[in-house]
Amino acid sequence: MAVAEFELIDRYFKALPGYGRGVDLGIGDDCALLTVPAGQQLAVSIDTLVEGTHFLPDMPADQLAHRAVASCVSDLAAMGAEPVWVTLALTLPEADEAWLLLLSEGLGEALQRYGLSLVGGDTTRGHRTLSLQVHGWVPQGQALTRRGAKPGDGIWVSGTLGDAMAGLDQLQRALRSELPAPDPYLLQRFYQPCARIALGQALRGIASAALDVSDGLLADLGHLLKADNLGAEIALDRLPYSPAMLAHYDAHQAQQWALAGGEDFELCFTVPEANEAALAAVLCDLDVGCQRIGRVRAEPGLNGHIQDGGSVVLQPQGYQHF
Amino acid sequence: MAVAEFELIDRYFKALPGYGRGVDLGIGDDCALLTVPAGQQLAVSIDTLVEGTHFLPDMPADQLAHRAVASCVSDLAAMGAEPVWVTLALTLPEADEAWLLLLSEGLGEALQRYGLSLVGGDTTRGHRTLSLQVHGWVPQGQALTRRGAKPGDGIWVSGTLGDAMAGLDQLQRALRSELPAPDPYLLQRFYQPCARIALGQALRGIASAALDVSDGLLADLGHLLKADNLGAEIALDRLPYSPAMLAHYDAHQAQQWALAGGEDFELCFTVPEANEAALAAVLCDLDVGCQRIGRVRAEPGLNGHIQDGGSVVLQPQGYQHF
Repeated sequence: MAVAEFELIDRYFKALPGYGRGVDLGIGDDCALLTVPAGQQLAVSIDTLVEGTHFLPDMPADQLAHRAVASCVSDLAAMGAEPVWVTLALTLPEADEAWLLLLSEGLGEALQRYGLSLVGGDTTRGHRTLSLQVHGWVPQGQALTRRGAKPGDGIWVSGTLGDAMAGLDQLQRALRSELPAPDPYLLQRFYQPCARIALGQALRGIASAALDVSDGLLADLGHLLKADNLGAEIALDRLPYSPAMLAHYDAHQAQQWALAGGEDFELCFTVPEANEAALAAVLCDLDVGCQRIGRVRAEPGLNGHIQDGGSVVLQPQGYQHF
Repeated sequence: MAVAEFELIDRYFKALPGYGRGVDLGIGDDCALLTVPAGQQLAVSIDTLVEGTHFLPDMPADQLAHRAVASCVSDLAAMGAEPVWVTLALTLPEADEAWLLLLSEGLGEALQRYGLSLVGGDTTRGHRTLSLQVHGWVPQGQALTRRGAKPGDGIWVSGTLGDAMAGLDQLQRALRSELPAPDPYLLQRFYQPCARIALGQALRGIASAALDVSDGLLADLGHLLKADNLGAEIALDRLPYSPAMLAHYDAHQAQQWALAGGEDFELCFTVPEANEAALAAVLCDLDVGCQRIGRVRAEPGLNGHIQDGGSVVLQPQGYQHF
């Protein structure tokens, strides 16, 4: 039984894409052997999702796989890197075949979506936990980092903000029978966030700094500004919302989730005024809109403006890991 | 409180060695940026240790760190790779400052011992779990793998076998007051196994196949032989034991742990007869002895011999992950 369970897991993983670009030796030996092309830096990031902390026990395993991969790949997007490899450390209380099959299907789709090969892993017994490490390539010296913004640079965000939190709210309200069903768009934004890989790569040489919005706009923008001891003015009426958000929630709720909700995995980046034409040119070719929501200023702190001239001091806050 | 705990962990990790060879950007951004030198392949392996499954709740955190790093680095040793970077995904029920300090001290020592830089990580709340991913370099095409053994090749092991299991037994008997104290040598072999990095690198071009003994000699050798559909004759009276093992246990117990105990993190490798002189030459420069314990044969299966001419069929078995 013990061995059979182990072999079961093994089988599900071996069916996943494993021998893509740069993979000299994949799963099955003590290490994977990989080749990074000349002139490229390796970008790596590791993320853990714990049942009960980051996802509910009844989250469908395929959606969990999508979310886990997207949230991790989003870190590559934020650096302007191209995703290539992933490793998975999976801890499970038991080998539940139906759950594993669903996880494997979701993983397979997510790996294909981002062009990733699964090159290694470890399966252990314990509380359900997934640790994913993603690996990407970025041309030497061209990675986007959190440092580099200058006073006067525009502050931009991709897509729309707050949708993931709205999706979670829809899900919870549907579970409590307050809604007949969650809004499908918002639910998908929660379950299957889209890492902005093409945008990240297009921003190389254009953005002065970048990161992904995982903990909430104010918290994440706060990290970026803090890296260079800067501040920002935010035009609160420029925050981008999805039609689904506006259909279900009032402006106050939408703004709250946009500023502090997190989990959207959109990119937040700064662009010098001189590069705005270049930005407009690359955005034409992408299927994601970007919105300038403010400007970097030399004085630390975050100031929020509304169109009629009012101004508020914004407190960076976001998802608390502990 | 929540943020303070998070910053606490952050502080402990930032104190660890982070900017060694090939690290262009370490902890603190969305990804680490790393450079693999021209002509080198990247070797990666991820391992998870779960409290209750792989270690007891009262295992001292510094010993846990040593063991976690060594067991992971051992996979690099088995490929003949040079350790360079590590990432740590750490899940904890709460930020216990005394425990974190001890973990950080042990990690710092272990990283220094193997020349590793900590380049990334994630801290999450949940059941205590460590996932470590190690990264190493190996000259293109020179990695040792599980494939490549040929009939007639000698089967070799480094160091002595069974000590980790004996150390665990000493520990458990001391806890039950059956012993005044565990034997310090055996205890160290359990708590601080030594990854055979220098040996692995020295075996490049000499060994035809290699792996590390993590699940037990028979189980691991079984993997190596299965990769090429081969078998082996093992001379059971050639299995290497430590003086401490022989002082505390009889030959039967020692042999049992040597064959099926696992967790020793010694290397098991095959060497063509033509390379035995080259092996002897490199072993002169190393501080670990190696012993030829058998020969590869074309017919699958494992046969055990003793000096008086008896022979037994050995069943590959080892640590069951599930």
